[in-house]
Amino acid sequence: MKIYENENIYIEVETSEIPWLKIFPVKKYKELSDCDTKTREELLDTMLLVETQMIKFYKPKKVNIAMFGNYLPHLHIHVMARFEKDSYFPEPMWGKKQRNGNLDLPSSELFVKNLLIDLHKNDIL
Amino acid sequence: MKIYENENIYIEVETSEIPWLKIFPVKKYKELSDCDTKTREELLDTMLLVETQMIKFYKPKKVNIAMFGNYLPHLHIHVMARFEKDSYFPEPMWGKKQRNGNLDLPSSELFVKNLLIDLHKNDIL
Repeated sequence: MKIYENENIYIEVETSEIPWLKIFPVKKYKELSDCDTKTREELLDTMLLVETQMIKFYKPKKVNIAMFGNYLPHLHIHVMARFEKDSYFPEPMWGKKQRNGNLDLPSSELFVKNLLIDLHKNDIL
Repeated sequence: MKIYENENIYIEVETSEIPWLKIFPVKKYKELSDCDTKTREELLDTMLLVETQMIKFYKPKKVNIAMFGNYLPHLHIHVMARFEKDSYFPEPMWGKKQRNGNLDLPSSELFVKNLLIDLHKNDIL
């Protein structure tokens, strides 16, 4: 589900037991080094903003970040909040399942609302 | 194996069938957003330089980047050159093995030598 878009980037929520966002450039770049400087800076700044907000809101055990794009070569950045009781921890979300996850997380709607406020603040600057 | 170190970051080679480097901050930060600005910029700039050099040297199908650190909460950035015939493609290197990889890659010693030249150029600037 797309939650944010501007002229350079957009953000989607991945359906998952964990808080998981994906940040895409609007132009279909294959690699991070293919991006124009403005888009790359905005992708990385947004990645850092999402990480910071996830830490503040969810207090995860660790934030995980990944850029793969092997199936579809359209660059995107995964930002995931990880918890000791999620189904895969300490493995990456692409690794071997460790247990049936049992998470009691605060409302993702409120998280997205707070994040959008911060993203729009940055747009104005 | 450590191949590079300065006052802020160091780089290790991961033993693997694919070209795989790991970039660490010298100070043991847990998250990217915990780093001081200088160290974070240097980590991300080096990540981009390694990606660019891998593309130039190995012509991979895709570069993969990941920051997990779930086992040991010492931030590091994995930069991996991926090929259609490697053992895991198109899965991440942490995913399900797809085949017995069969890669014929140019000398990693030469890759590291070229990378070090570029890193030292950046040090001088």
